[in-house]
Amino acid sequence: MTQTTSPAAQAVILFGHGARDPEWAGPMQRIRDTMRVRAPGQHVELAFLEFMSPTLDLAVDELVARGVTRIAVVPVFLAQGGHLKRDVPVLLDAARQRHPGCEFHLSLAVGEAPGVVAAIAEYGLSAFD
Amino acid sequence: MTQTTSPAAQAVILFGHGARDPEWAGPMQRIRDTMRVRAPGQHVELAFLEFMSPTLDLAVDELVARGVTRIAVVPVFLAQGGHLKRDVPVLLDAARQRHPGCEFHLSLAVGEAPGVVAAIAEYGLSAFD
Repeated sequence: MTQTTSPAAQAVILFGHGARDPEWAGPMQRIRDTMRVRAPGQHVELAFLEFMSPTLDLAVDELVARGVTRIAVVPVFLAQGGHLKRDVPVLLDAARQRHPGCEFHLSLAVGEAPGVVAAIAEYGLSAFD
Repeated sequence: MTQTTSPAAQAVILFGHGARDPEWAGPMQRIRDTMRVRAPGQHVELAFLEFMSPTLDLAVDELVARGVTRIAVVPVFLAQGGHLKRDVPVLLDAARQRHPGCEFHLSLAVGEAPGVVAAIAEYGLSAFD
């Protein structure tokens, strides 16, 4: 029998850079809300590298305290750059050491997804509409 | 008769933040290439705020030199933040002063587009697949 994780025990963290301007978090909040509507049983939380809260550390610790045993970190970044290559692996290693019973997965930046590239291209072509 | 601009005389500039890591530009190049395939007569160029070239100034000047009279700047940013509220309007004002015969349009950040939010949400929900 294959071991499965119930939706309630797994979570997605949308991880963004953060900014000083509170309005900056609007799209991430709308992405989170869209995911919650499409997958009601799925934990979806936000976390930020800087300027905004919670940090990735705090978001992970709170999910684990709620019984989550499997976390996917989805970087809401346009591309794989220094933050994702250097900073995020260090944060994830620390999370793994704090929570050896939790499984962590790190996705590629959202901008690397073909469906996201296509949606941005479509938006770009509507610029003169 | 309504005055129209031929596709050859208008251009879209995909404007991104830029980063030290060359790989960072990959998604923007793929967005540009997708747009060129979908709209073969449409000029589509990249420009960057920092770290990468060309700058927005240079991209605009080159397009105007090629006869473009209408430019849409599409910010490939996840959200409206300080760069788009402060830096880009200053750059666009300077471009308008240099090229009074060219019409400029500034789009909202790509992350504000509902289709892009939906595509990122879909990607986020596939994180455990």
